[in-house]
Amino acid sequence: MSFTIQNVLIPIDRSYETVDVQIEDEKITAIEPQLQVSGTAIDGKNKLLLPGFVNAHTHSSEMWQRGLIPPVPLELWIAELYDFSPLDPEQVYLSALGTAVETLLSGGTSVVDHLVLIPGRELETVAAAVRAYREVGIRAFIGPLIQDESLSAGMPAGESEKNHEPYFRSTVATLDLMAEVVSQFHRPDEGINILVAPTGIQLCSDALFEGCIELSDRHNLCRHAHLLETKAQKQLAQEKYGCSAVEHLKRIGYLSDRTSLAHCVWLNDTDIAILAETQSTVVHNPLSNLRLGSGIAPILKYRQAGVNVTFGCDGASSNDSQDLLEAIKIGSILHNITDPDYRHWIAPGQAVEMASLGGAKGLNLAEQLGSITVGKKADLVLYDLTSLSLLPRTDPIGLLILGRPTEAVNFVWVNGKQIVADGKVKTIDVDSLRQELFNRSQWDVHRKSQTVPAIEAHYRAVMGL
Amino acid sequence: MSFTIQNVLIPIDRSYETVDVQIEDEKITAIEPQLQVSGTAIDGKNKLLLPGFVNAHTHSSEMWQRGLIPPVPLELWIAELYDFSPLDPEQVYLSALGTAVETLLSGGTSVVDHLVLIPGRELETVAAAVRAYREVGIRAFIGPLIQDESLSAGMPAGESEKNHEPYFRSTVATLDLMAEVVSQFHRPDEGINILVAPTGIQLCSDALFEGCIELSDRHNLCRHAHLLETKAQKQLAQEKYGCSAVEHLKRIGYLSDRTSLAHCVWLNDTDIAILAETQSTVVHNPLSNLRLGSGIAPILKYRQAGVNVTFGCDGASSNDSQDLLEAIKIGSILHNITDPDYRHWIAPGQAVEMASLGGAKGLNLAEQLGSITVGKKADLVLYDLTSLSLLPRTDPIGLLILGRPTEAVNFVWVNGKQIVADGKVKTIDVDSLRQELFNRSQWDVHRKSQTVPAIEAHYRAVMGL
Repeated sequence: MSFTIQNVLIPIDRSYETVDVQIEDEKITAIEPQLQVSGTAIDGKNKLLLPGFVNAHTHSSEMWQRGLIPPVPLELWIAELYDFSPLDPEQVYLSALGTAVETLLSGGTSVVDHLVLIPGRELETVAAAVRAYREVGIRAFIGPLIQDESLSAGMPAGESEKNHEPYFRSTVATLDLMAEVVSQFHRPDEGINILVAPTGIQLCSDALFEGCIELSDRHNLCRHAHLLETKAQKQLAQEKYGCSAVEHLKRIGYLSDRTSLAHCVWLNDTDIAILAETQSTVVHNPLSNLRLGSGIAPILKYRQAGVNVTFGCDGASSNDSQDLLEAIKIGSILHNITDPDYRHWIAPGQAVEMASLGGAKGLNLAEQLGSITVGKKADLVLYDLTSLSLLPRTDPIGLLILGRPTEAVNFVWVNGKQIVADGKVKTIDVDSLRQELFNRSQWDVHRKSQTVPAIEAHYRAVMGL
Repeated sequence: MSFTIQNVLIPIDRSYETVDVQIEDEKITAIEPQLQVSGTAIDGKNKLLLPGFVNAHTHSSEMWQRGLIPPVPLELWIAELYDFSPLDPEQVYLSALGTAVETLLSGGTSVVDHLVLIPGRELETVAAAVRAYREVGIRAFIGPLIQDESLSAGMPAGESEKNHEPYFRSTVATLDLMAEVVSQFHRPDEGINILVAPTGIQLCSDALFEGCIELSDRHNLCRHAHLLETKAQKQLAQEKYGCSAVEHLKRIGYLSDRTSLAHCVWLNDTDIAILAETQSTVVHNPLSNLRLGSGIAPILKYRQAGVNVTFGCDGASSNDSQDLLEAIKIGSILHNITDPDYRHWIAPGQAVEMASLGGAKGLNLAEQLGSITVGKKADLVLYDLTSLSLLPRTDPIGLLILGRPTEAVNFVWVNGKQIVADGKVKTIDVDSLRQELFNRSQWDVHRKSQTVPAIEAHYRAVMGL
């Protein structure tokens, strides 16, 4: 399918130009003023065309608990999350649809879903998410969330004994499962990609990381993990390895130019140098880091050290939305308070590049995605600059990133296919999705986690509260 | 005019109840299940009713420069803002309309407009804003932004000589102007209130503050000002008074239970105790504090000290939106990183109370506004809980505050008058507002401030950059 977007603003060299953009099949084939229309003509007048952003870290099924978990730190939050997590695959399908829709309507064309697996129904869980992402047509990177240690192992022991229940699935069985997931679902040419994605050092053995490295090398898979989200995890890494988590991950070979690491809040300068040297990508999830009180990731330091940084929404029960523009705005301006020298602050145009090309780099796809360039895949978003939230006319990207755009996403194409038109998702029925989400839930503020009270005293003791 | 909102969720004691709410003329007259309908029936099923929020600090005409000013600290930002500020009253009218619309569609029913005056056309400026707010029907608190020292006086001198141009208007003339503004426009019964609002200690003499106190006492006006937004202002206060700005304002008698102070980022514990003792209100503008790199206001400390806190968007060129729900979300979760003890963190229900009753208290109207209470004025917002952004159903207020609601505001009443219905502002033509804002602006990224380069070297020297 071919189409020509006519008279559209695109950013060039810190300014804008009005051009036509030609798309043939899945690729951008020409960018020039006054092109001859080939295929459908799309009116780009008073609109801004940007490369699609990457929602580079989320957990789609958390949508079922958004708005519900009280303000507590990660270690308690996750206990409550898991108390209520058992879902059926149909719910996974619906929350993946919801995550995709919110990502698309906030400028995203790719989603990295660090997918919580239903115990005993792991392949069905992945199949449900794959089905959702195929139906919507978003480019999907699914990293089944795996671990081989039980939840209690994720908290520093402090003075207490380290004695945890074994995890219900063995390391070998987990790696076998991952091999099966790759075999059944990894179809990069069809927009469905599997990542290896051990949850993080707090719940995974070296054997699990090493098995994932092997799988990643064998199938050319990207690698993903949480990294040093909380101060407690920093403390845990010292207990577990006698060195920083980053030093340990480097030693076992997990870091690479196709490794993306969510959060990275508690890294020191040596750790930062290691990320730069290994060309690893940091996925910044500012809203969840605030919501859980995890801290402010040292993003300006990463940028100064040459570390690639991009943005994620994180799961919807620690944010609690899937709005990429919100994550990009807060993930940019938040750092102005960390360095008095404003010459280091992130400008809106830089934020756009981090969210698009930065996201593509983190998925080892910078040659194919992340900018409006002839030869690259057409993952594109067209913003309507006549939305009240983007008026009066000033700097379109400044308005988009620093403002609070509403109803601004007008058209979205993924791999050259039209997914959103006139502000509406065209590939699925969003009204019936809303109806399903409504019918399968109820307003409820009275549930009580069993685990949180059981572990809270230990958490407070270890953290000195 | 009377109406009954039927079967609507309202928050009661950390939970929700389904009730009918009766409004007669401008007041709430009954809250009970199964009321007999009096007047129009409004279907509240699957909807949440909350008291209207207060956008407790903004500068409406900054809308003309939103998205445009690069990421720099306040002292440079304001120089660029003022380089391009001269506007005509028609522009003031339009940006006041825009500010009101965005406030209403994000849950606000009152706006505090710290209004930048056009030199030589001051009364016309106020008239233009008054006209806009009357037309829209939002409850307006207009504090003409006055000063009697020139902009350069607002930066600490450091080692350099203090030698500033006199301000173009005298203190006496400014106070005369304010008296005239009060006489012409202060009509609390009609929803238009004038505040005394010297810009802040950085640009105002004691004589100006004292004249405002006198005017405020004579006409029972609320008082407003910026306070210690930046580290530079803290330094300036020491240079100017030899004590903290808060100690000085207390000494001259500006602090009171009808004084609201925007920002309050750089206060120490003694200052905080003074705010508590004087029952002053802090207006927290988290987004602008991040955008300008001003810092994080110690909001948890304020709350622990018993200081009333509410939220503002601040002007749209330092935020750059007028979305109150965004300011409330970030203004709540931001503080989780300032205190490891999560028991001090702000819960969504508390944030709602800060934004509604806290806002009313800051305007000395807690008896009349800020909660759904029989006898109070009907400044009410009805949220549609079937919006995708508020699904699946969990805790409605958790979703509203921690999520990123879109198209959630369904109905708004101010003083019992319907302003928004079915998600649309009914009192003005928003499409023609958009058209006007579009026609009077252009996409422009090439303007260059004259003043910023002239003062930047001094700023960097004084701030040790």
